[in-house]
Amino acid sequence: MSNATTTPTLQPAIPRAMSFYDQLKFDANGLVPAIIQEQKTGRVLMMAWMNRASLEKTLVTGKTHFWSRSRQKFWMKGESSGHTQTVKDIAFDCDGDTLLIQVEQIGAACHEGYRSCFFRSAQNGGAAFKITEPQLETPEQIYGKK
Amino acid sequence: MSNATTTPTLQPAIPRAMSFYDQLKFDANGLVPAIIQEQKTGRVLMMAWMNRASLEKTLVTGKTHFWSRSRQKFWMKGESSGHTQTVKDIAFDCDGDTLLIQVEQIGAACHEGYRSCFFRSAQNGGAAFKITEPQLETPEQIYGKK
Repeated sequence: MSNATTTPTLQPAIPRAMSFYDQLKFDANGLVPAIIQEQKTGRVLMMAWMNRASLEKTLVTGKTHFWSRSRQKFWMKGESSGHTQTVKDIAFDCDGDTLLIQVEQIGAACHEGYRSCFFRSAQNGGAAFKITEPQLETPEQIYGKK
Repeated sequence: MSNATTTPTLQPAIPRAMSFYDQLKFDANGLVPAIIQEQKTGRVLMMAWMNRASLEKTLVTGKTHFWSRSRQKFWMKGESSGHTQTVKDIAFDCDGDTLLIQVEQIGAACHEGYRSCFFRSAQNGGAAFKITEPQLETPEQIYGKK
């Protein structure tokens, strides 16, 4: 008779590819771009960069956290303005190198006081541009006078 | 009497900042990320990179053209699959370093046959992920068997 039943069977390791994080490809600087979309309206609000630590912080806290390439530091969206973003869903693309995050946005997403950072569009084949939405607040109203 | 009426007046030069292109900040590689959104549904379909020449081609032809960082060449979305994107609007963000392009999409935007490249979302705090939309076609159906 076979002694197979007495031989301990090794369970296959859970493939690392099962994890969300393992699907992602951070760039040479350890970053991925994160597109932020307002879930209830579909309005694309902004794009900013995340490293793995800021993404983990986003998942744990439920508020968007980014990595500032110019200031080389973490920032939570709304930490100065109060205009925080509550995370509803985090999707990633087929190449694993871009995130699409659905949020509930408080106030203006743009530091210039517009609902969306994409408040200007090209016109006349690129010869000009126009502003496409109202400014909700001035930067002074959001951040206070310096 | 004043001789003001006989003095030729110099018209101020049209500020370069009036052009859409002059609002943009291409990165060190001459690229900007372009978020592609389906205008009629608000679904974010994909993100790809443009250099100035591919953006000009997009504006002139009305079809999205990108720059492939991996292949170092231009590509028109849909050139192999027929799944082209007709441009409806080109917006840019407050920093001028990201584009948001509204399109009319033919067929699946994703080369894996999904409507959107963002067909997977994180689950269980990042420990797993799920597929969130149906696959419309297989890559073989789109591109033919190799």
